[in-house]
Amino acid sequence: MKVAIAGLGLMGGSLGMALRAAGHDVTGFDADPAEAALAVERGCADRAADTLAAACADAELVVVATPVSQIAGVIAEALAASPTATVTDIGSTKGQVMAAVPAAGRARVVGGHPICGSEAHGAAAARAELYAGATWFLTPTLETEPERLAQVHALVVAVGARPVVVDADAHDRIVAVTSHVPHVLANVLALQVAEGEVDGHRPLDSTGGSFRDMTRVAGANPAIWIDILLDNRAAVLAAIEDARGRLGEVADALAAGDADYLERWIGGAREARRETLARAHRTTPAELVDLIATVPDRPGAISAIALALSRSGINIEEFALSHISPESGGEIRIVVAGDEQADRAVEVLRAEGCAAFRAEPGGAA
Amino acid sequence: MKVAIAGLGLMGGSLGMALRAAGHDVTGFDADPAEAALAVERGCADRAADTLAAACADAELVVVATPVSQIAGVIAEALAASPTATVTDIGSTKGQVMAAVPAAGRARVVGGHPICGSEAHGAAAARAELYAGATWFLTPTLETEPERLAQVHALVVAVGARPVVVDADAHDRIVAVTSHVPHVLANVLALQVAEGEVDGHRPLDSTGGSFRDMTRVAGANPAIWIDILLDNRAAVLAAIEDARGRLGEVADALAAGDADYLERWIGGAREARRETLARAHRTTPAELVDLIATVPDRPGAISAIALALSRSGINIEEFALSHISPESGGEIRIVVAGDEQADRAVEVLRAEGCAAFRAEPGGAA
Repeated sequence: MKVAIAGLGLMGGSLGMALRAAGHDVTGFDADPAEAALAVERGCADRAADTLAAACADAELVVVATPVSQIAGVIAEALAASPTATVTDIGSTKGQVMAAVPAAGRARVVGGHPICGSEAHGAAAARAELYAGATWFLTPTLETEPERLAQVHALVVAVGARPVVVDADAHDRIVAVTSHVPHVLANVLALQVAEGEVDGHRPLDSTGGSFRDMTRVAGANPAIWIDILLDNRAAVLAAIEDARGRLGEVADALAAGDADYLERWIGGAREARRETLARAHRTTPAELVDLIATVPDRPGAISAIALALSRSGINIEEFALSHISPESGGEIRIVVAGDEQADRAVEVLRAEGCAAFRAEPGGAA
Repeated sequence: MKVAIAGLGLMGGSLGMALRAAGHDVTGFDADPAEAALAVERGCADRAADTLAAACADAELVVVATPVSQIAGVIAEALAASPTATVTDIGSTKGQVMAAVPAAGRARVVGGHPICGSEAHGAAAARAELYAGATWFLTPTLETEPERLAQVHALVVAVGARPVVVDADAHDRIVAVTSHVPHVLANVLALQVAEGEVDGHRPLDSTGGSFRDMTRVAGANPAIWIDILLDNRAAVLAAIEDARGRLGEVADALAAGDADYLERWIGGAREARRETLARAHRTTPAELVDLIATVPDRPGAISAIALALSRSGINIEEFALSHISPESGGEIRIVVAGDEQADRAVEVLRAEGCAAFRAEPGGAA
């Protein structure tokens, strides 16, 4: 298949690499000629075209991988440049983009949104495996020709992702809850703590690990996030309202001293958390085991542990270390799948001189 | 100093270890004799007493390290058991506990709350370094004798923590914002995503890394958290109301399409996040560098990287790895302090065959 990719950053570049690995022919275009040259050099495309129109001229399928605010315009240009190509995109919101597709082109357009990414950016960070295993939403219009949808579906499968066909507006409501509101909450929490002052003390001075985890995405790239939030504002507003309602319910239960409500509420959250982790690791919630090990703060201690686990054939699904302080030893959190791996990991960790335990999910502040 | 510790779990046991290392004499008591025996065996106490009264009889200082719901009762028992000892505790909320101190004993009581912990529990997980570098709030009453405060202050310094004297109610308002509301938000988000259904699709099926980070503490130990939230309900309710108000403001800005507001808002959150990280790492925000490296999914790859960084003398402040999928390579996030360490780390990572970059804080969903 002859594929054109408009926008050769991390996402477009990685897609090109994966498509080429799957035997497809890729022509790239990027508004920044240096980025285009780097992308070709790194194997993201077989060649770079000088203009978007030139890239699309020969293509059977055009993938628009530009920033969100440019997508609608580039889709229209691509439709104009090629009278036959199927056009798709990989933008984070879909309703407005799909609504903006020119009537004459709607038969040829399938919206798309792969749920993956990285904090890195640019063709320099591209890697063929980026899409492997990711959910990839596809949002055809009612006018989209079936063979166009089949074509984009095949592209998604070719790079190892899992296509999920969904209405554009439903898509936007889903990501509002799974991605956009989490970002909003992270920002709200970061600001609430930073702006607080209690009797001359700044809450920010005494934050712990849970606050740091919850604000990891706080302040993420404003250029991208302003577009996303504004584009998807209807769904984000509804999801914010839902979150506010849920906070209000918890507040009512607290005010009433309703311990039963709190127990059901925390229990439900625990189930949800387990289910999410299990899906991420392609296992069942019952299979996942969280381990905690305390590690002495000496040079090479973490390396020795990672090496020992790896040598023992233990597959670490997640691995996180936080220094509590320079004077103190660290604590590592590891998630493994299955009792057998968990027992073996605890043995290996103890042999390395760590105190090692199965942990409850969630845990201390 | 002769110290008695009531409750020899992770917190009490670790405190005992640290105090003994600093040359103090520690008598422990735990309602569970097996836990007490293990604590002595692990060096958490010089000896275990059979009763709380016996543990307190000789003590100059009694530390109450029981679950929150028992603290007030144990403080009263300790005051009754010893007519002279200073009594402190390490519970997560302070207002109700301090209010419950018998009038006759108030001169001898100093409330306390170290901001540290672990997802592990029990004396088996105790370690002397747990408190090193942690903020440790001290909440004297107006009746507390100055020498009592000085004594507890000295204990905190002896185990390497940083004492911060604050009013009990101010303490509760601070932790409501830094710890209790983050837990509430994590639960709310986990349930909102788990309970959502959009056109037959479950949002839970397509969550990404930001959602997983933000819900790490969701569903944490109900036995502990129900007590904490109810004990501190006034401050938690106020902080929830603040969060709801902030969400409302963002919603208004979104509804009005106010991009300027969103830019200031995200920028502010970014500053807050940087400042928190810098404080955790005892450096300035400008010094911290986030690095991202992509890692091939082959056995031992992570170990080799950790080893190479360690050999090069690079001090990794934070280290996190998530498998995006079993088929895909992973991505590691590393935080180091200072440009020199960052440049060197990038060099080492590239020599190990990783694509390595400086990342923007926050980043992709």
